[in-house]
Amino acid sequence: MAEASIDVVGIGNAIVDVLTRSTNAFLEQNDLPKGIMTLIDGDRAEEIYGLMGPGVEISGGSAANTIAGIAQLGSRAGFIGKVRDDQLGQVFAHDIRAAGVRFETPLAAGGPPTARCLIMVTPDAQRTMTAYLGAAHEITDDDVDSDLVAAAQVTYLEGYLWDPPGGKAAFRKAMAICAANKRKISLTLSDPFCVDRHREEFVDLVENQVDILFANEEEIISLFQVDTFEDAVAAVRQHCEISALTRSEKGSVIVTNDHMYEITAEPVASLVDTTGAGDLYAAGFLHGYSQGLDLALCGQFGAIAAAEIISHVGARPEADLKTLIGHLIP
Amino acid sequence: MAEASIDVVGIGNAIVDVLTRSTNAFLEQNDLPKGIMTLIDGDRAEEIYGLMGPGVEISGGSAANTIAGIAQLGSRAGFIGKVRDDQLGQVFAHDIRAAGVRFETPLAAGGPPTARCLIMVTPDAQRTMTAYLGAAHEITDDDVDSDLVAAAQVTYLEGYLWDPPGGKAAFRKAMAICAANKRKISLTLSDPFCVDRHREEFVDLVENQVDILFANEEEIISLFQVDTFEDAVAAVRQHCEISALTRSEKGSVIVTNDHMYEITAEPVASLVDTTGAGDLYAAGFLHGYSQGLDLALCGQFGAIAAAEIISHVGARPEADLKTLIGHLIP
Repeated sequence: MAEASIDVVGIGNAIVDVLTRSTNAFLEQNDLPKGIMTLIDGDRAEEIYGLMGPGVEISGGSAANTIAGIAQLGSRAGFIGKVRDDQLGQVFAHDIRAAGVRFETPLAAGGPPTARCLIMVTPDAQRTMTAYLGAAHEITDDDVDSDLVAAAQVTYLEGYLWDPPGGKAAFRKAMAICAANKRKISLTLSDPFCVDRHREEFVDLVENQVDILFANEEEIISLFQVDTFEDAVAAVRQHCEISALTRSEKGSVIVTNDHMYEITAEPVASLVDTTGAGDLYAAGFLHGYSQGLDLALCGQFGAIAAAEIISHVGARPEADLKTLIGHLIP
Repeated sequence: MAEASIDVVGIGNAIVDVLTRSTNAFLEQNDLPKGIMTLIDGDRAEEIYGLMGPGVEISGGSAANTIAGIAQLGSRAGFIGKVRDDQLGQVFAHDIRAAGVRFETPLAAGGPPTARCLIMVTPDAQRTMTAYLGAAHEITDDDVDSDLVAAAQVTYLEGYLWDPPGGKAAFRKAMAICAANKRKISLTLSDPFCVDRHREEFVDLVENQVDILFANEEEIISLFQVDTFEDAVAAVRQHCEISALTRSEKGSVIVTNDHMYEITAEPVASLVDTTGAGDLYAAGFLHGYSQGLDLALCGQFGAIAAAEIISHVGARPEADLKTLIGHLIP
C-alpha cells in the first residue's frame, strides 16, 4: 500500500450551528428533550427558530468539528459532507477550509438548504440540539472521493450519517476503499438515540469493520445492551482494536484487547457550553494516533481539546490547540 | 403631541457581522487599516473572506446593536434598516426581533445580498472592520414608517447611513417627522472617516437638528476641526442639547449647555473584542434618557453596557443587561 498522504478524512453531516442561551423552562414548554439531538423538519425548525432568542452562527457538524480540530492540531485532514450553495453553505465551506481542511465535496446547486442545528445552551452549560438536516442528508456515495479516502491513514465516520440511505451508501463505499488499501476505519456512535435506531447494524460494524471506536458511556452501554460500563468494556475489547470511551467529568478510558488506560478529565476554569466535547476529544485522540503516539497520550490530547471547546460557545476551537498540547509532545 | 408609545427607534445599516481572530501581520499584508471601518465592494469582500480564518456570524450594524441593547434593557424599541430575504437577512430579522425590537422594514426580494461586515479582532481586542453594504444601502425614505417614528420619543440615526442617497433621504424624512411631532433627534457620528466624508453636512445637522449627539473623542475633534477635546466640548455645547462623548478607557463626558458630567469607564475583567463598545454605550444612555433619569446615571448605564459588550466576541449583549444596571435603578 502507498504511504498515506492524508492523516484523517471525516465523513459526516455538514451543518451550521445556531447557538442561543436558553432556560430549562423553554425546553419544557417546547417539548425539547434536554441534552440530546432531535431531528426536525423544516417547518418545525422555522417554528423553534421563531421562538428562540438571538443566535450566533458557527460552523458545526460532529465529524466536521473533529476534522477541523485535527487540522488545527497540525495533522493533514480532509472532510466529505454536503451543503447547498446558499449563504450558510458558503459559510460552512469557508470555515472548514480556513481551518486547513481539504474540502472538495461539490456544493448542491438545488434541493433543500444547508443543514442547521438549533442549539439551546442552558445555564448548566448543557446543550440541547434540534437538527434540520436539509442538504446534509442529500449525500450519496458519489460524494465519496475514492482517492482521498484511499490516501488517508484513518477514515472517521459519524454515526449520525447512518440515518439517510445515501449516508449509509457513502460509508459502505468508504469502508470498502479502506479495506482494499489497508487503512483504518474509525466510527463514532454519535448519540444514544442514534444507537437505538441502528443497534444491530452498529454492532455488526463494530464487530467486523471498525478499528477505532469512539463512544460515551451511555452509548456503549446501549450498544451492547448491558447494565454496567465494565460489562460494555468487556464486550467492546473483544472486537475493536481500540475503543476510546468518554465519561464526561470522569475522564475517558482507552481499551484495547489487552490494555486499558484511564485518562483524567482536563480541568476547566469556566464551563460555558458542552457542545462539541466528544467531537474535540476525538480530534485530539486521532491527531495523536495519526502521529503514532502512545494511546495514553492520544487520550490526554483528547481531554485537552475537549476542555478547550467546553470553555466557550460553539464547537470549533478558539484557542490554538497546538499550543495547548505543546508541553506533552515527546 | 400624543404620548410616545415607543421609546427609541433607530435607523441604520442592517448588517450581519462575520468575526474572526486575526493578527496585525494579516491586517498589514492585506492593506486593512487597523481599528477603523473600510467600505468594500462584493469582489473585495469575497477576496478578504477567502483569506481570513474561520468565522462566527452574529447580527450587527451600529444602530441595530444600540437598539437591540435598548430593548434588552427594557425600553420599547424599533429599528428601520434593509436586508434582503436571503439566509443572512433572515438571521438579522430573527435576532433583532428575538431581542424584543419592533422590526417591520420589508425584506428586499431582489437586488444585492444582505450586508456583511468582516471583522478582524487582533490580540489587543481591537477590531478592524471591512463592510460590504449590499442591501443595507438600498434603503429609501419609503422604508421609514411614519407612524413608528412619530410614536417614538427619540429617533436615533447612524451617521454611516448618510453615505447612500437613500439613507440621507430616509434621515431627512425621519427628522421632518420628529420636528412635526416634537420628538428628539439623536445622531451618532459613527467613525472619523465618516465625519471626513460628510463634515459640512454633519456640522449643519448638529447645529440645527440634533438634540442628542453621540461621538468619540476623535470624531468630535474632527467634526469641528479643533486641536483639543476641550475645544470640541466648547464648540458642541453651544449647539446640542446633550452630547455624550466617549473616550475609551478614560470614560465619557456628558455635556449640556451649562453642565458637564464626567463618567468613569466600568472595569472589565477580560477585554476580548471592542466591537460594539460605542453602540452599547449609546444603548445604555438612551435607555436611561427615555426613562427620564439623570444624565449622569444615563452615562453610567452606557459605561456598564459598553463593558459587557467588550468582554466577549460580537456586538450583541450576552449577559442580562437589565440585571447589570439593576443596582443603579433609583
